[in-house]
Amino acid sequence: MTTPTPEIIRAAASRIAGDVRRTPLWRLPGAALGLRCAEVWLKLEQLQVGGSFKARGMFNRMRSLPVPAAGVVVASGGNAGIAVATAAQSLGVACEVFLPEVSSPAKRTALAALGARVVVRGAAYPDALAACLARQRESGALLMHAYDQAEVVAGAGTLGGEIEAEAGLPERVLVSVGGGGLVAGVAAWFGGRCRVEALEPALAPTLHAARAAGMPVDVAVAGVAADSLGARRIGDIAWAVQRQGFIAASHLLDDAAIRDAQRRIWRELRLAVEPAAALPLAALWTGLVQPVAHERVAVIVCGANLDPASLA
Amino acid sequence: MTTPTPEIIRAAASRIAGDVRRTPLWRLPGAALGLRCAEVWLKLEQLQVGGSFKARGMFNRMRSLPVPAAGVVVASGGNAGIAVATAAQSLGVACEVFLPEVSSPAKRTALAALGARVVVRGAAYPDALAACLARQRESGALLMHAYDQAEVVAGAGTLGGEIEAEAGLPERVLVSVGGGGLVAGVAAWFGGRCRVEALEPALAPTLHAARAAGMPVDVAVAGVAADSLGARRIGDIAWAVQRQGFIAASHLLDDAAIRDAQRRIWRELRLAVEPAAALPLAALWTGLVQPVAHERVAVIVCGANLDPASLA
Repeated sequence: MTTPTPEIIRAAASRIAGDVRRTPLWRLPGAALGLRCAEVWLKLEQLQVGGSFKARGMFNRMRSLPVPAAGVVVASGGNAGIAVATAAQSLGVACEVFLPEVSSPAKRTALAALGARVVVRGAAYPDALAACLARQRESGALLMHAYDQAEVVAGAGTLGGEIEAEAGLPERVLVSVGGGGLVAGVAAWFGGRCRVEALEPALAPTLHAARAAGMPVDVAVAGVAADSLGARRIGDIAWAVQRQGFIAASHLLDDAAIRDAQRRIWRELRLAVEPAAALPLAALWTGLVQPVAHERVAVIVCGANLDPASLA
Repeated sequence: MTTPTPEIIRAAASRIAGDVRRTPLWRLPGAALGLRCAEVWLKLEQLQVGGSFKARGMFNRMRSLPVPAAGVVVASGGNAGIAVATAAQSLGVACEVFLPEVSSPAKRTALAALGARVVVRGAAYPDALAACLARQRESGALLMHAYDQAEVVAGAGTLGGEIEAEAGLPERVLVSVGGGGLVAGVAAWFGGRCRVEALEPALAPTLHAARAAGMPVDVAVAGVAADSLGARRIGDIAWAVQRQGFIAASHLLDDAAIRDAQRRIWRELRLAVEPAAALPLAALWTGLVQPVAHERVAVIVCGANLDPASLA
């Protein structure tokens, strides 16, 4: 399994510079968040095109590889599907998104509004994925994966490069993990030069379970963040980056802590974020992660695809 | 009427540096917002302590003047009241907020949660204000005004200084106007070195009416932004800055354009803002303000005290 190098990530950043937004890095004294560390750097990546970091990887893959006339195809009703449809629309590429019957009509409408052809197949996500793969073999479209393709991971890694270019090297970086595309890219960028820590819902512990088992294993998935962090198994690329020693720790958060942090982020910081994006601050506020006094801690705020009414 | 100078505003910035947040300046190519100008700089001041720019002025006044044991007193159920209560709590100062009977229980609860003593008096805001002034004469508390005190305007002006320190001089700055404290401070900072334009709801046109009449006049106030831009008359300080020639234009926006922009800001940028904060982008998106190709346009996103459910 090839993991991205800083050079590959730098090339990805150049490739997508005209497609994605350079999101703000909001530097606050720790005290502004009720924390004892010197600074917290909030990378406001929920403001990215499509409402999550996923656009970086999807644009990078579509700009790296030849896209056939059949366009791109993906099985996802979450942030990956939105990002693929957004990138495809922007690049004028055909796009099919496969969803299962359990997906909400609101998601289907949102994807169709981005110009995607929405295909509903099968009862649950594995069925929609099977239909998507069959369709790809038939159409020859470029298959897009939510987190386990080299270009997708390198695209996510550009976030690390942006943080460092703007503010220098932090002592610690906190990243939410679902399938591990984001943590893989960011940890590959920093390459052990600072402490990159993974945060996962206790109800969707893909990396934690893999670390315990010594290899990727399937996990059951549930909880408030399952919509965006609900991968069943850590990606092979993320696992390879873990084996390189670039991910220093993984921590589990329960749903109550995640929801509390999500609401507090709205109440005190006026940032509307989805539950998945609240894990790093949940870890700091609960004391699960305790940076020491001199530390500058970078927090990746990864997505804002939520119903704003849920913040009240 | 004394208007603030850049020196006074610089002193205010030093005075409140430990109290307020340095909010992000998000620089985007105009095309990212569907606009033809070179760049749009979004000053994300809705992320300020208390959810609006008002904290700058309130901290500055409390740090500039002796605060008696009776503390501070204000008549406001909007962003000014929240900012006064927030600053008072932070500085350990007693705080009374006067509200009329029409004010919502939600506001009273929010102010009480910030440690303010909430006093409900009279049917409408003028009655609550009269009660507030009577109370001030009796208690000797420091009276805080939402927009028409020198320290409050100078505090608001620090926003202009932050924009320029971070990105240099823009060609144009767009600012929402209620009582005019924000536009007065910002226009006083730039002092005619760039084009500062005021945006007002057609249903709360204090500056527009004053410009037409040649002096401040009372206006009727209604509409979606009345909660935060619903002053009845432009402040004397803002009028003095207008007479200095530092406010290049004022434009009126109807409620539909304001609400459309507020929803679009959420949908496309994932920023949750109140209607008052949507006026500058409403002016750009409707074509009411048309910057030319080379321009860098600074937009002050002034507040986020809203029910997030209203964004749907």
